[in-house]
This record gives sequence, C-alpha cells and structure tokens, in this order.
Amino acid sequence: MSHIKNLIPSTVNPDLQNERSAAEFNVEEFSAWWHGGHDKLKKKREIEKAIFSDLEDGYGLNHEYMSHEEVYNSTVKKVAEAAVKLKALQNKLNPGGTDIWPGGLFNAQSFGLFPANHPVATHITMFVDVIKGQGTAEQVEKWGKAAENCNIIGTYAQTELAHGTNVRGLATRADFDPKTDEFVLNTPNLEAYKWWPGGLGHTANHAMVVAQLYIADVHHGVQMFIVPVRDSETHMPLPGVDIGEIGKKLGMASVNQGFLGLNHVRIPRTNMLMKFAKVERDGTFKASPASRINYLTMVYTRCLIVSQNSTLLLAAATIATRYSAVRRQSPIEPNQPEPQIIDHVTQRLKLFPEIATGIAYHLATEYVWEMYAQTVQEANNGKFERLPDMHILSCALKVLCTTDGCAGIEKLRLSTGGHGYLTAANLSNIYGNAVAAYTYEGRTRYFASSMQLKEFPKWDDSWQCIIKALQYTAAHKTRIAFENLANRMASGQSQGVAANNTGIELTRAAELHGRQFVCQTFLEQITGAKAQKRSPALNKILENVLELFLVQTVLNNLNDILRFIQLSDADLRSLQRRLEDSLEQFRPNAVAICDGFEFHDRVLNSVLGSYDGNVYPRLFDSAKRSTMNQKPVQTSFETYLKPLMKAKL
Amino acid sequence: MSHIKNLIPSTVNPDLQNERSAAEFNVEEFSAWWHGGHDKLKKKREIEKAIFSDLEDGYGLNHEYMSHEEVYNSTVKKVAEAAVKLKALQNKLNPGGTDIWPGGLFNAQSFGLFPANHPVATHITMFVDVIKGQGTAEQVEKWGKAAENCNIIGTYAQTELAHGTNVRGLATRADFDPKTDEFVLNTPNLEAYKWWPGGLGHTANHAMVVAQLYIADVHHGVQMFIVPVRDSETHMPLPGVDIGEIGKKLGMASVNQGFLGLNHVRIPRTNMLMKFAKVERDGTFKASPASRINYLTMVYTRCLIVSQNSTLLLAAATIATRYSAVRRQSPIEPNQPEPQIIDHVTQRLKLFPEIATGIAYHLATEYVWEMYAQTVQEANNGKFERLPDMHILSCALKVLCTTDGCAGIEKLRLSTGGHGYLTAANLSNIYGNAVAAYTYEGRTRYFASSMQLKEFPKWDDSWQCIIKALQYTAAHKTRIAFENLANRMASGQSQGVAANNTGIELTRAAELHGRQFVCQTFLEQITGAKAQKRSPALNKILENVLELFLVQTVLNNLNDILRFIQLSDADLRSLQRRLEDSLEQFRPNAVAICDGFEFHDRVLNSVLGSYDGNVYPRLFDSAKRSTMNQKPVQTSFETYLKPLMKAKL
Repeated sequence: MSHIKNLIPSTVNPDLQNERSAAEFNVEEFSAWWHGGHDKLKKKREIEKAIFSDLEDGYGLNHEYMSHEEVYNSTVKKVAEAAVKLKALQNKLNPGGTDIWPGGLFNAQSFGLFPANHPVATHITMFVDVIKGQGTAEQVEKWGKAAENCNIIGTYAQTELAHGTNVRGLATRADFDPKTDEFVLNTPNLEAYKWWPGGLGHTANHAMVVAQLYIADVHHGVQMFIVPVRDSETHMPLPGVDIGEIGKKLGMASVNQGFLGLNHVRIPRTNMLMKFAKVERDGTFKASPASRINYLTMVYTRCLIVSQNSTLLLAAATIATRYSAVRRQSPIEPNQPEPQIIDHVTQRLKLFPEIATGIAYHLATEYVWEMYAQTVQEANNGKFERLPDMHILSCALKVLCTTDGCAGIEKLRLSTGGHGYLTAANLSNIYGNAVAAYTYEGRTRYFASSMQLKEFPKWDDSWQCIIKALQYTAAHKTRIAFENLANRMASGQSQGVAANNTGIELTRAAELHGRQFVCQTFLEQITGAKAQKRSPALNKILENVLELFLVQTVLNNLNDILRFIQLSDADLRSLQRRLEDSLEQFRPNAVAICDGFEFHDRVLNSVLGSYDGNVYPRLFDSAKRSTMNQKPVQTSFETYLKPLMKAKL
Repeated sequence: MSHIKNLIPSTVNPDLQNERSAAEFNVEEFSAWWHGGHDKLKKKREIEKAIFSDLEDGYGLNHEYMSHEEVYNSTVKKVAEAAVKLKALQNKLNPGGTDIWPGGLFNAQSFGLFPANHPVATHITMFVDVIKGQGTAEQVEKWGKAAENCNIIGTYAQTELAHGTNVRGLATRADFDPKTDEFVLNTPNLEAYKWWPGGLGHTANHAMVVAQLYIADVHHGVQMFIVPVRDSETHMPLPGVDIGEIGKKLGMASVNQGFLGLNHVRIPRTNMLMKFAKVERDGTFKASPASRINYLTMVYTRCLIVSQNSTLLLAAATIATRYSAVRRQSPIEPNQPEPQIIDHVTQRLKLFPEIATGIAYHLATEYVWEMYAQTVQEANNGKFERLPDMHILSCALKVLCTTDGCAGIEKLRLSTGGHGYLTAANLSNIYGNAVAAYTYEGRTRYFASSMQLKEFPKWDDSWQCIIKALQYTAAHKTRIAFENLANRMASGQSQGVAANNTGIELTRAAELHGRQFVCQTFLEQITGAKAQKRSPALNKILENVLELFLVQTVLNNLNDILRFIQLSDADLRSLQRRLEDSLEQFRPNAVAICDGFEFHDRVLNSVLGSYDGNVYPRLFDSAKRSTMNQKPVQTSFETYLKPLMKAKL
C-alpha cells in the first residue's frame, strides 16, 4: 500500500475520547468494585504489565495463519515462556502462593497469553484440583505438588466417544488384581475410548481416568484413577496406551484434546483417589460416605464455566460497544452525516442488554462460589447435605449462563457487521471458547416444585413486582407441568416415560426458576446493604443496569407471564417505554462501563475493540500481516489458475 | 490403535436402517417433489456421481490441517480440476448450456467439491450475472462470455472498509476525463478501501467496482465500472492498484476475500456498465429510467442468500437428525438401556422444528425466485413498478431466513453435543457459510402499514386462524408503533429521529409481517391445488410438517399475540399438546424426510451425518487423519515441554 503509512496512530479515537469524557460516574470506582477492591485491582494491573508488556506485535494473531501442527507447537513454546514469567512474578508478589504460578496459566488474563487457549489448561483447572480435592494426604503429597509445578502434566479423562452426560454409562473398566495389588484398566470397545480431554493428545503424561471399579467382578461404581500414559523421559506412549488427538475443532485450536484407549494397563492400587471411597489391600471396598461425591468435581467445573462465560460475554460486549461508538452508519435524518451506530436505538438493543446480562451472571457467580466454598468445607468435615442443592443450582446456572452467554456473544458479533466475521476481531474465538462449555457437563432439568403459589398482587411496575411475577409464572408453569405429568402417569405411563413426554414444559419451568434466581441475586447485590459502600453516582448507573436487565427479562418471557398475570395495554406500553428509557440512560455510560471491566487489550485481542479505538488502521494492519500478503502472486497462479484461464474450456 | 481394524464398516447402522424401514411415505416421491420432478432428480444424481466418485478419502477434511496459504493454493487446484470435469459434463448432458459449467462452481452440490468454499464463487454468482444483467449488448459480448468461461475472473467490489449497508455513503470516486475518454478511479482514504470482495485477494484479475460517478465535478450517483486489477499474463497487480487479502475469517477459509485501493487508475469510458444509466463521449449523462436499478443486484443477491441458507439449514438438520437416531443417551426409565436420543422429547424439539423451518423457507424461496424472474423481465421491457416491492420482500425474507437459519444451524450443532464442536462434523463450517450472509446487504425495516385491522374472529385452532392471528398481531404491532412514531413527531421530533426512537417496535412489526408471509406461502404450497399432484401418504407427512411449523410459530410469538388476542387456558394447553403431537408424528418420518432432501455425503462432509450412520468409526477415522497423529511425539516436547517439566520452577 504505497500512499498510506504509519498505520496505527498513537492517539485515541476522538469518538471514544468523547464517550469517556461524558460518562456520569467514576470508572476507577467501578473497576475497583468490579475487581473486589483497590488492592486487587492494583495487583491485576501489575501482573498484566509484567506478562504482556514484552509480547511482540502480532502475538495474538499469528497462530491463525499456521497449520494445525504449527499452532500446537508454537503454543507449547508460549506456555514454557509464560511459565518462567509467572513463576518469577509469584516469587516477587506472593512467594509460596499458587495464584500466579500456576494459577495464571488459566484465568481471565491468560487469554492474552494464549489466544488459541493451550494444552495445559485442563491440567491446571481439573487435574490439580481433583487430586487436592479427592486425594488422600499421601496422594496430595505424591502428585499434587509435582502437578502444581508442572513436573507432571495431567488431564481429566471422563467422557468417552459414545458416553457423555450419563456418567453411570461409562464403559472403561478398572479391575482390582489382589495378586499384584494393582488395578487393570481396559477400554472394552471403540465407543468407550476416552475422547475430549484437553492436553491428552500430545501433552499430558498422566490422565485422571474415570472408570467403573470392579473387585472380583463385583461392581463398585465410578472411581478415579491416576494413570501414567507417556514415558517421563521420552514422552512415548506407554505400553497398552493408544493415544492421539481428536482432530480440529471450531475453537480452542491448541488445547490438544485427545483420545485414549487402555489395553490391560496396570497401575498400583494406591493410584485410585481414596479420600472418600477406598479399596484396601485385601480387596475390601469401603464406599464413600456420600453416594455422589464425584459430583463435586462437576459442580466445580460448572461454577468455573459460569465465571468464565460471563467474563467472555463482557469481553465481547466491550469489543462491540467500543466499535459501535467508532463506526458510523446510515443517517438518522436524510442528508445528515452518518451517526455513531450506537445512536441507532436498534443497535443499543443489541449491545446494552448483553452488558446487563454479563453483570447479572457475574454477580450470581460470586454468590455461587461462596456457596461452593461452604460445600467443600462441609464435605471435608463429613457433611454432605448441601451437595444436592449445590448440584441443582450449579446445573441451572450453568445451562442459563452458557445459553444466554453464547447467544449474547453471537448477537454481539453480528452487531459488528461484516468485520466481526474476521478472526482479527476475535469475536468468533471468544464464541468458540464460550460455546465449548455449552456442552460440557450435560444438562439436567430441575424442578421448582418447592415454590409456593401465593396469589399474585396487582402489577405495580416495581422491581420486586417483576421478580414476583417471574416467580409466580415459574410456579404456575411448574404446576401445569406436574399436572400433565400426573395425568400421563394416571393414564398408565411410567414416571420415566411421562417425564420424558412432559419434558418441554418441565424444562421451561426450570428455566424460569433459574431466571428469577439471577434477577433476585442481582437485586440484592445492587440495592442491599452493599450499596452503602458505593457512591450515589455509581449506584445510579448500576440501578439503571438492573432496571434494563429486569425489564428485558420480563419482555423476553411475556409469552408465559401473560398467561398467568393480567397486564393492561398501559402496563405493556410502560414496559416498552422503560426498556427504551433504560437504553437511553445507558447510552452515555456504555463505553465507560466497558472500560470499568478493564479487559487488557491483549486479552481482548481485537482490532475492533482496542482501548484506543483505532479500528480501521488496525483492521488494515492485521490484513497486512496475513501470510498470503507477503507475496503479490500465489504459487497456484502459474500451476493451476493461469492454465484454467487460458484453457478455452 | 492396535486392536481396532477396518474402521468404517460397509454396512448401514441398524438404527438408521430401522428408521428407514418404518417411514410412512415413499422417499423417492418426496425427493422428486423436492427437486422439481423425476427428471431433475435423475440429472442431479448423474452429476453428483460424475463429480464426486473420484475424490480421494479425506478430500473434505484435509484443508483443516493446512496453513492459511496452503488452504488457498490447494483450493485453486480443486477449482481447476473441477472445471475440467464440469465442462466435460456440460458438453455431455447439455451442450451449449451454462448450468453445469460454470454453474456447477456454485450451487447446492459445490460444497462437496469445495468444502472451504472457493475464490471463484463471487465471480460466478456476481460478476458474470451483473455484466449480463446490467451491461449493454456490446459489453456482454466483450466480457460476459470470457467471464463465463473463466478466461477472465472478476469480483464484485461494493463494500468499503468503513461503508457497508449505506450504498450512498460509498467514497470510491470515478471522474470522467473527456480528453482521453476515460474514467479515473480513486480511493480517497483508508476508510474507502474496498473490503470483502471474494477472490479479490489473489485470484481475480478484474473487479466490478461500485463508485460515485463525477463528470466535471458534478455527482451522478453510484455506478459500476469494470476495472482490470492484475496483469493477464503475470498476474501482478497493475499500476495504481493496491491489492491483497483481508485476513482469516471464521469461515469460508479459501474464498480469498480482498481489499482494493485505487490510485488514479484509468479505464475506458466503455468500462462503465451502461444498460441503464449512460455516459456519452462528450460527457453527457443519461440517467437510468429507474432511480434505483442497482438495487436489482442486491435483490438478486438476497434471493440467492435465502435459497442457500434454507439449504444449509436442512443440511445441518440432516446431520443432526441422523446422528440423533444413532446416538444413545440417558435412560428414560431407570435401569433401562440408553434410548436413541431422538426419543427424548426435548431432543425432538431441537430437531424437527428446524426441518420444518427449512422447508418453509425453501417454499417461500421458490415463490420469490418466480417473482424475481418477472421483475427482471419487466425491467428489460422498461417496466420498474415491481422493483420496490421486490426490494422490500427480499429484504424481509433475507433477514428472517438468515436469522432463523443461523440460529437453527447453531441450535442443531448444539443438539449434537460435544462432537458437533469438531470440524469433522462440518456443522461449524455450515454455520460459517450461513452466517456470512447474515451481514451482507444490511437490514431494512419495512412497514406493514397496508395491513387492514379487521376484527379478529374467535380462536378456533385452524391453520387459517393461526395465520389470521399472526396477521392481526402484526397489524396491531404496526398500529402501536405508528402511534408512538406519531406521538414522538407531535412532541417535536423529526421523522428520522422519531423513527429511530421507535425502531425496536417497527422492527418487531416488520418481523411479524414477514413471518405471516412465510406461513401463508407454506399453507398455499401444501394445501392448494398442488397437493393433488402428490400421494395422500406424502401429503399427510407434509401437513404434519406444516402443523408443526404453524404451531411453533404461534408459540414463539405468544408474547405479542396474547396482547391482542384472547386465548383461554384450554387454548394454550391445546397448542402445547399440538406441538407435542406433531413432534410425535414427525418422529417415525424424521430420518426419511432428511433422506428425501438427498444431500450427497460429499456435500454433508460430516462424520456425524453420513448416510450409513457409522458415526463412531468415522469419528475415529477422522481423528486418525489429523496431521498431528502422524507422529507419536511432537517436536515441541524436546525443545519446550521437557525443559518445563524438568525445570523445578
């Protein structure tokens, strides 16, 4: 490009600068609130400066032009380089802790280091945690520390090629051999191959294998076994281990997900995690005090997913909102200049409700993490009463948050028009990361049967009224679903068949119940005692976010609400007006709210969403980095294209 | 994998075989109806046999493992090889025609030849058609035939980096120079670079450039210019032409979309397309008889998009439905074996409505193509009355079909669980192709202002009643939107500002109007005189598809319908029951209906969706083809992973 030089200016786009000047609250206060206090915010900034400042230009985009194999190998290099940085930072900021090393291999910042994700993520998020949570003290001593320091790298191998959600249906088998004090692990057929574990392909040398335990051919449920799968020196697959990667996916290009078949693989008896269930030397089985303690791992995973997906939604919202403040399109008045697209009301509807949704799930997540910590503490003390509730709540939130989060990210991507289709916008990658979680951990209906059917008071436009309306609707949907279930059973269907036939209504009732929970949590966080700690200006902004979220939730669920609650034409017009008003009030603060989430440019990794808003220069810069643009004519011209064009077919 | 051999059986999965045996209609009759008659179906099969039978194993997947540059060059090879086959087939089956060569470079079959799409697609779909539609006889003679035979390859360059939907806002400029009888084309700034045209990066040597025409600095609107961009012998960019590709996208990996900057590029006056508007030798401008004849190109593109997206939706539905008949998951009764997942009612809800939607849009498309052909014929005879209606209808259908189609494809992908995340399932690729169209051609609201507000008769459960309810609701939504528009104008807002502020309601009214159009067309195609040509058994199946589509449409739009139409609790229970019943009746015919669309396995290109249903062997086979699985240990182990693991950080 001959006549355009110095592509990316060092200045901030004036449109974005104007947005920031016009914000009606203090962004620094928002950021501190969002990140849990000024100290945490300060630490976050220090870490980001240390890990991102020396990354070269194009770091976040280069992998897009590589072959599948190159992507993997270049990512392993990135992990090794990051490890050194993170460990040094851990020693400096919090010696002896694990929050930065290895914690920094997988958190909200790590997307900036590993834009295509990485093959040690499952090791960090699952393998280490499961050993610490479900291993005996000896097991934690033996494997936990080595794993935490990446001296061994593991993965979590539960799902099989043809067995996913239904854990009881897993077919991998572990037989105890009392003669040698070993378990013998086997994959009985192709459908039972382990499939999906991150890093299993070519990275991990251990796998936490979930298998059916048999002792003298007596079945003792599903247990977890630490299985070495590669030689610690040569990294070659061990005897009896059939291992490889499962092929390319729509996202997570370098997670190196793998398959695993086991053919009479022997491991010591002490490689079964035995904090709860136990197998003794003579083959005596001692059951876990709680029947489904394994669920704790899935609960943890779901909480992690909810956290991560609300973060991803807000990252996408930041990109789309900044771009919408810079992009100009279609005059509102004929013969006027094109306005910022964020001034089109229909565009606001695409952006702001997603920001509100991300905030709502973020707040719900904080509540759920607290509850999870209590559940774990109680389990360690032998109390398991909270586990079923935690299981149900985490299922419901996970389903809602991934559904809304993924739909929201895609809606935001579409709101950016064509440029969002470029990988350099990073929205497709964010979607790819978010949607992967959609399918983990299956889906479980849960029944809001405990809800009370009080009479609904008159509609009065208050936030409490909205939440009551959602609760009332959920309760009535549940009532009708259970009536239909009962009728089907009365007509002779078994409970299972009747539940299946009523599945659509039961699922919808559960969804509504989950929605009222998220609304209720949001209301408590914004209007309760916690509001006292924030300035009136910030509270005013947050109350408008809440207003938008609640009104939007009502309008999106009117199909059921109107069935049970009388809303007049005036009520409905009022709701529409409240939607439009809250969007209008959101408008001057939209960019600043996104700034408040404080996603580092390296984390956003987007030509459309960078802090400086230099969208078009960055788009052009990224195009120029395409490997194809390093030569004016591609090799296929001489060999294929020219012959075709001259062929006179 | 040592103990599993001969991965893919030559037999059909028994579950799929059972589904086919139990179908309640003749699939061959369905296929013939769907493809427009037995002769067309026969020809389709003959063509597919000729173009697909010699493709090697792994043809559809190999590109996933290549670098960006390799994907491009390998696709050019595929195009060149396909050209020879297609031309030979054209000569054999229909000498002198263009339906197979070059038509076969872009149609429902071509996805099987070019799984990552290809860089000559825009040439075939746009460049050739625009010359024929808007060029003079001399221009068609000069460029049309050469283009049709790929002796020149062009693209259609309208969108600019910062100017999309709003065609009037394009900034590329063409100035007439009477001294030399030439136009001088210029890209005034970076934001005006052409951006997105398929094949522009390294393939096309001509571009149809849409630019603002100026004669002696007087503006004469947007016109189209044929601009040579690369040397016909060396393929090097011509002087003043800055050209390259725009970088990687989420789909369409080998479409080679490009950017184009023009710096005083001169072309003969006769390179402007002059069938309608004209510039004479002395600089006299003769306007087109219709002010917006350029819209015809966009109308054509939209019709093409609606056709293609309904096809893509049905391809995705075929994959997901076949897989759902093979996959077994989660017992319905405790301690029973896992059923086919298609027997879970909630799974049916994910699949069958999408099939119905695809059929509905397919039928609407047929109607719209007929109307388009009439519009073109009339335009050729100097009549342009139909153009505005055609513009509006094509906008509405395009928006609805891409919105529903993309959402449906993604829903179907998610219905397949984790395996749909693999590129080998091809669902992400189908989505990538479909969603690209979401953003082409912008979105236009249109106002259903002509609808009459008759009083709504009593709800009676008939199909006509459902359509009337949708029409009635659309009309009332329009009424309210216009009331709010008028109120805003009465309070002092200009029409533009008031329309923007009422945008959410206007858009929703337009959506409802579009939906009733699709429902109405579906009803006419299934129940009208055309039903006489089909067997009663087939009609019964199609009527159930219609029933499902109509009931689903009502249930999805209850939030508005309930505002205007009184439905009793019994009515609503009846609708829910009808939904469940139509899903139940769909169940035994689902696989057979998908068979009836007759997507060739090469076109589906999916391990989950092949006709034989050997899902797990094919999944494994595709994993084994990953380039990474050709060596047991990756190169990064010695250089990065081992040092990390031994580091004792």
